[in-house]
Amino acid sequence: MNHLYDLIIIGGGPGGAAAAVYSGRKKLDTLVITESFGGQSFNSGDIENWIGTLHLSGFELAQKLEEHVKAQEDVTVQQGELVTSVRQSSSEDYSFTNPIWEVETNKATYHTKGLVVTSGGRRKKLEVPGEDEFAGRGVVYCSTCDAPLFRDKDVVVVGSGNAAMEGVIDALPYAKKIFMLIRGDHMKGDDATKEKILEHEGEKITIIYHGESKQVLGETVVTGLEYLDKQTSETKTLEVQGIFVEIGSLPNSEFMKGVVDLNERDQIIIDHRSGKTSASGIFAAGAVVDQLYDQNNISVGDAIKATLTAYNYVVHFK
Amino acid sequence: MNHLYDLIIIGGGPGGAAAAVYSGRKKLDTLVITESFGGQSFNSGDIENWIGTLHLSGFELAQKLEEHVKAQEDVTVQQGELVTSVRQSSSEDYSFTNPIWEVETNKATYHTKGLVVTSGGRRKKLEVPGEDEFAGRGVVYCSTCDAPLFRDKDVVVVGSGNAAMEGVIDALPYAKKIFMLIRGDHMKGDDATKEKILEHEGEKITIIYHGESKQVLGETVVTGLEYLDKQTSETKTLEVQGIFVEIGSLPNSEFMKGVVDLNERDQIIIDHRSGKTSASGIFAAGAVVDQLYDQNNISVGDAIKATLTAYNYVVHFK
Repeated sequence: MNHLYDLIIIGGGPGGAAAAVYSGRKKLDTLVITESFGGQSFNSGDIENWIGTLHLSGFELAQKLEEHVKAQEDVTVQQGELVTSVRQSSSEDYSFTNPIWEVETNKATYHTKGLVVTSGGRRKKLEVPGEDEFAGRGVVYCSTCDAPLFRDKDVVVVGSGNAAMEGVIDALPYAKKIFMLIRGDHMKGDDATKEKILEHEGEKITIIYHGESKQVLGETVVTGLEYLDKQTSETKTLEVQGIFVEIGSLPNSEFMKGVVDLNERDQIIIDHRSGKTSASGIFAAGAVVDQLYDQNNISVGDAIKATLTAYNYVVHFK
Repeated sequence: MNHLYDLIIIGGGPGGAAAAVYSGRKKLDTLVITESFGGQSFNSGDIENWIGTLHLSGFELAQKLEEHVKAQEDVTVQQGELVTSVRQSSSEDYSFTNPIWEVETNKATYHTKGLVVTSGGRRKKLEVPGEDEFAGRGVVYCSTCDAPLFRDKDVVVVGSGNAAMEGVIDALPYAKKIFMLIRGDHMKGDDATKEKILEHEGEKITIIYHGESKQVLGETVVTGLEYLDKQTSETKTLEVQGIFVEIGSLPNSEFMKGVVDLNERDQIIIDHRSGKTSASGIFAAGAVVDQLYDQNNISVGDAIKATLTAYNYVVHFK
């Protein structure tokens, strides 16, 4: 018979870390399964909105989260594992009166009474010809990490939200020329960042509105991005050596399909007061759920709700 | 004509601070009205569940929040003011197409397009004879602050949740004998803290279950607490010099009565996904709303939701 955990937490971003800290302090026998700590912010150069801290890097945040999780005596961490499926166990070996959940990873299978899913999201791709071919050879998905590679080169940042605007700021100290390619007619992120960008517009930065990416051009490495000017219906080419793709993220919910209810965007549907999903014993929070805003501190708060609800559930039925 | 703010934030606890940081970064013309920073945790000696930080005191947390708020260029802080009422303005001087809200404090009146209410909660009282008479003369509402005053004295901590359990821990290095008076049959807080208490049970700590406070006894200062043993129906007396009242909190929502819908516990009813209240332009989060769990990080996350919804509202109608 496999060991039966009280709670398994999937994910090591801000939400997963918060869940682990609270679960540990509640003395639940807890397992955290995560590839790494820090979540999508891991690659952020400078985070200014982690409440209570003026500045820290994504790497520093990841370290702080990992340290806090690992300080919890009752929390075991399986790092470097990827969850591939979750299903209700058919085993009758356990005394727990409610469903036992079986969590399968690329390395092992675990059993648990409760599950907190904070598996987050991942970057969206452009889905145009040449993108995969030139990934890592000019096409990058982490502006902060890779901006220094484009010193004195010309780059385009594709996207209009905070991630894209921060990508532009990331490129500023390195790139010779920066294009920002926006599908709509405005930037969607924080005004503070927007102002920083507009200060440099016309000099180093050129903003292109109504532009839709069509094809990544290149030989051994990227030489340009072809896009459609939706106002004139012309196809135009930006001669750049770097393409920073910053157009949002998708929920990491594949392994939850058929297990809990998802919405049309494959996000887990939850009760936002308690963190409950449609399945008994499964709770969720963060970028994997049907939330309005994807922010580190929101994932933290909601993961704590999910964990406290999970705690009540596990204790009630055990 | 009065200055018209984009957003007024009521409160300077973790929720209010988070709202201010996000509002500032969105470049909203923001006013924070608060008596002080830090919220109900201000008096905590050691906080171990502020995610990402192993240990900090409530005072340190308050300082970090205040610093983060005051780093925001577009945020004005009115510190030391207490909101007395909120009402819809009848002024037609403003061009904003939606309601203008008028916020009155003990010192001034302010006008705003949007309002984020994060006014938190406050400690509940025992409501027994002698309590008010001996407040500050043995009856205390902040164990952490006042425990050092009871060196070599006997004290009782009234309550069963985290605050009460932490009150016991606070008293441990100082008091000679510590009673914990619990109305029900168990402690309701974190198991980690519970274990710490149980380690000392029988030695310095005595836990009394099914006990209901009846009267504070004293002459110039507290000499005891009379309580009803609900199992035997006997009235008993604890001879103590200190009474630490740690029985929960009430929402600071008086000024919102008749403005937004409240529940039967006078908490503001919100949509937990967006932070919307029943009134157009008013958003809320934290201990003042109908939430399940009162935790610093939950207030932070939910206040960010409320602020981002407020931002969309203010920008849409301005």
